[in-house]
Formats: sequence, structure tokens, C-alpha cells
Amino acid sequence: MMSHGITAWDVAKLAGVSQSSVSRVFFGGAAVSEKTRKKVLAAAEELGYVPNEFARSLITNKTRVIGLVMKGVHNPFYPQVLKEFTTHFKEMGYSILFVHTNNDEIQKGDIEMLLHYNVAGVIITDATLSLKVIEDFKKSQIPLVLFNRKVEGQNFFSVGTNNIEASRRIAEHLIQKGCTDMVYVAGAQNTSTSIEREKGFSEILKKHKLPYKVYHSNYSYDGGYHTAKRIVQDGTIPSAFFVANDIMAFGVLDALREQSIAVPSQTKVIGFDNIEMAAWPIYNLTTWEQPISQMVKETVKYIISEIEEYTDRIGNIEIEGELIERKTT
Amino acid sequence: MMSHGITAWDVAKLAGVSQSSVSRVFFGGAAVSEKTRKKVLAAAEELGYVPNEFARSLITNKTRVIGLVMKGVHNPFYPQVLKEFTTHFKEMGYSILFVHTNNDEIQKGDIEMLLHYNVAGVIITDATLSLKVIEDFKKSQIPLVLFNRKVEGQNFFSVGTNNIEASRRIAEHLIQKGCTDMVYVAGAQNTSTSIEREKGFSEILKKHKLPYKVYHSNYSYDGGYHTAKRIVQDGTIPSAFFVANDIMAFGVLDALREQSIAVPSQTKVIGFDNIEMAAWPIYNLTTWEQPISQMVKETVKYIISEIEEYTDRIGNIEIEGELIERKTT
Repeated sequence: MMSHGITAWDVAKLAGVSQSSVSRVFFGGAAVSEKTRKKVLAAAEELGYVPNEFARSLITNKTRVIGLVMKGVHNPFYPQVLKEFTTHFKEMGYSILFVHTNNDEIQKGDIEMLLHYNVAGVIITDATLSLKVIEDFKKSQIPLVLFNRKVEGQNFFSVGTNNIEASRRIAEHLIQKGCTDMVYVAGAQNTSTSIEREKGFSEILKKHKLPYKVYHSNYSYDGGYHTAKRIVQDGTIPSAFFVANDIMAFGVLDALREQSIAVPSQTKVIGFDNIEMAAWPIYNLTTWEQPISQMVKETVKYIISEIEEYTDRIGNIEIEGELIERKTT
Repeated sequence: MMSHGITAWDVAKLAGVSQSSVSRVFFGGAAVSEKTRKKVLAAAEELGYVPNEFARSLITNKTRVIGLVMKGVHNPFYPQVLKEFTTHFKEMGYSILFVHTNNDEIQKGDIEMLLHYNVAGVIITDATLSLKVIEDFKKSQIPLVLFNRKVEGQNFFSVGTNNIEASRRIAEHLIQKGCTDMVYVAGAQNTSTSIEREKGFSEILKKHKLPYKVYHSNYSYDGGYHTAKRIVQDGTIPSAFFVANDIMAFGVLDALREQSIAVPSQTKVIGFDNIEMAAWPIYNLTTWEQPISQMVKETVKYIISEIEEYTDRIGNIEIEGELIERKTT
């Protein structure tokens, strides 16, 4: 039998031992005699007692829950990231408390919730933090990782791909394909990923004295679609579009298709992420692969080590990705 | 100050009261004097004590955590469902413990984890349960909802859309459009959704004495793509494809496009779900809209009522959706 209502107290009563003996059997601490241990285990078995993680956390002051804060479930990149985190943390005995935020900036209530649950660590993907929230985290000594984001001038640990190097290589790839005047379709404003991708890209174009324009968008399909439509309607078709993520690149490709502009003969398109859909025959998108699995593994490694010993180590792990050449360049 | 290490014990010490007084102030129970309450609150304020949900759960024997078990993060339908659940439960003061399962059948370890965390309720989306797991749940008296799934002969509460009625309407829509010989591209085997969608569809075709074929697939883009390719290579193009979900329908459309088969003039395609992508100009898919928000609201309502008073109410809520006619029929 396994019942919601069975507590350590019931086990203690049936075993004829103290409640703290039951705690020690299941959660460690001071030694218990072999005789007591056997009595407790027999009683637990009979009652179907499942040691409660919440009770455990009161004794060890540690939970096995990781808070994961995410905004963009509309971009398939993030559900994939969620899946990888859940899988890797499960292997380490940790569970994921999922927090969805509608706002770019994480709300105070979300953070209080994570603190109430005494989470062992927090991962923030595509959302930003206010200074106040950052202070609370530092005080709480809960390990925190920014995943696929960096915050300038803030002392956090972040894990991402090397966006600057990636976008340099993207520029070189397009130059090699004969592109001259190019367009960068930027992601959501003030995101480190979009800023860094523009930086590496423009650096190479400037070096080659090639012109380029930047159009602001928002990392969504609709954003890519409307931006490309506007560019084409302005009358000039650039020789290539570097689009800051894949889902926007699909919007760009669909807008070009509607206007009967052939890819890759009339213009070229390159994305960023290499989400599954990029390989679909309808898109066949040349893109930069973000090594999600490795990024997730590094994040898990850091958080687990900080849970074991809090050092507030600050740093930035950047993992190299690779160009996946398909049919749009 | 807000610190990981501050406990009710510290607050009690500073306030000069017993630990149980601190508990009573924050979590209710026996009354405390106004004087004690003020002392406790002042001490808590000074120390930055955040009442721990885990501690709370030991006293109330209830957590505010809902376990959500999900398999198919590759189908955008499910990340959308996750987002809606997180948003609606947050409004009710509940958080989501996310469990990803790679297997069709939920593993024993996943369920034990949910029981360890003493979750207040469980929602299972696109995964199945073994009989053993079902028994454990019934014993634990944790409210459980199967979302978008039914299990034949098992006494659970389920929430979904009315698949049979929806697929009847889909058949009638295609007949009205002049389709005669049709194909049903089924979803993952043994899923209630795929079985019910076939049932309603075939019922109407039989009534009209129209021929149809069933092809087995797996609710994935690749599944739809390869199934359509095989059908076309067999030499006969049906007058319509009813595809059991949208993501498979995209695969069907891309395979048809590759073979230069025009939609809707040479053949028609209809999906199920109405995920965001169905409206993308490249697909413009006629489909059946599943009313996710309403389905989620009904699920939340049931779980909250069962948390308040466990009745083990069994039943099946089916919410009507609607046909979204776009360009593929």
C-alpha cells in the first residue's frame, strides 16, 4: 500500500521507535542500531511509506528540485532545451520545477515561488532579471545559470554557444558564396545572442568593406515574415539574409516564396540554431547548429558542483557549434 | 536579507517563542496571540525568513505542486499545453513539476518521484500507464487527469476534445468538397485520439458508401512525410487525406509538394489540432481546432476540486472544437 497520508510518525508508531529514528533511517544523520533500522523498514514496508522529499529537505536543507524559467515555448528550440534538461537532471536524481514567464523580465512572484520551494538551483533561459531579483539570488546562495543568455556587467555564470565566432564564420560562408550586400535580421532587442551575432557578422563584413543593413525583429516566425516582406517591398533584394534564429528564417523564406523570389539563386538565407524543422524538405535551411546537448551538460555540471559546494564561481562557458550547409545558400 | 539557510528555528530563537508558534503564524493551525504573532513577524522580517513550502507541506500534508507528465515536446501542441497549464495553475497558487518521459509508457521511477514529492495532483498527456502504476495512484489518493487521452476500461478522469464528433464533421466537409476515395493517416498506435478520429471519420464514409484506406503512422512530421510518399508511389492519389494531427499533415503536404501534386486541386489535406504553424502561409492548413485553453481550464478545475475534497470522481469531459477552413481543402 502506498498512501498520501502515511507519515514518518505512523511508521514510528508501528515500529515502536521515535520519529527521529525513522528520519535517520531514511535521510541519514546520527547512526541507528541495526535492530531499529530493521523495525523501521518493516513498518515502512507494511504501511507503504514513501519517504517524502519535502521532509528530507527539512533535515538536509537541500531539495532535489531545479527551477527552470522559460519564456519562448513557441520557438521549438526551447522545448528541446527543456527536454534535455529534464533528461540530464533526472539522471542525477533531480526534478524540474517549470516556470513560464510571459514577460521578458522575470517577475518577482516567480522568483519568490522558487525561493519558497527552496530549489537547489535555477536555470534561466530566454528571460532577463531585474537588479533586485539578482540581489535576492546572490543572498540566497542558490546556484544560478543563464542559459543561452549573458547579462553585461552582472556577475553570473552563463552557458551558451560562441555566437561571435559563429557569426564570423557565417559571414565568411556568405562571402565565399559571392554575396556582397547583405542584411542582418536581428532577434529580440537587447538580447545578448542577437547583439553578439550582429557583432561577429558585421566585423567580417567591415573587414571586407562590404555593405550591410540591420533590420530589427523579435525572434518569431511572424517577425521574420513581416521583416522580409518589408525589405522586399522597399524594392531592393539583398544578396543574402543572415537571420538571427531559425524560426525567423522560416518566416523570411515564406515571405520570399510568396513574392516569387528564388532561394538560393536570387538571394540566400541562413539561420541560427538548427532546430529539427530546419531539415524539413520545405525549408532545407542552411544554419548554425547550437550544440544543445553539450550546453545542457555543462550547465548541469556547474549546478551540481555548486550545490555540493557553493563557490559563486562566475564565468562563461561557450561551446563551439558548426555550420550545417543545406539548400538555402 | 533572504537566505537559503534561515529556518523557522532561527525565527523562533530571535523572537523568543517556540518553533511551533512560528509554524502556526505562517501555516495556520491553533491560534497564536497577537503579541506572539508580532514578535514572529518582526523576527522573520529581520532575518529575511521565507516560509518554506516544504515545511508547510509537512504541516498541512499538502503541497502546491502539480506533476505534469509529457512525452512529445517535438509536437508544438504539447509545449503550448505546458504553457497553458503553467499559467493557469500559477493563478491558483500552484507550480508545475515537469516530467518528461521518453517511453510511451510512463516508467515506475517517474511515478515514484511524483509520490516522493507528495504532489497535489498529476496530469498525464501523451503517455500511457501500466496497471501497476494506476493501482499506486488510486491508493495514493492523488487526483489524476488524463489530458487528451483516454484509457479504455480504466477508471480515470479524462479531459479532451470530442474527437468522434470532430472527425464526423471532417468527413462531411470533405464529402461536401466532392472527395470520394479518401485516406486516413493514423497517429501513434493504440492512442485513444487516433482510434476515435478514425471511428468518426469511417462512420460517415461507410454511411455514404465511400471507400477509404487507413495508413498507420506515428504523429510525427517524418511519419506523415514518409506515409504520403509511400501512398503516392503506390500509384494512386486519393481525393483527400485526413491526417490525425497537424504536424503529420505538414509532412504529408511537403511530400505532395515534392511530387508536384497540387493541393487542393489534385488532392485535399486536413489536419487536427490547429497549432500555430497551421496558419503559416506555406501550409495554410485546413484543420480542426482543439480548444486547448478550455481543456486546460476544465482540467485545472477538476484537480483543484479533488485537492479540496478527494472524491475519485470518474468521468470524461469532452469539449467541442471547430473546423478552421484554410487553403488545403
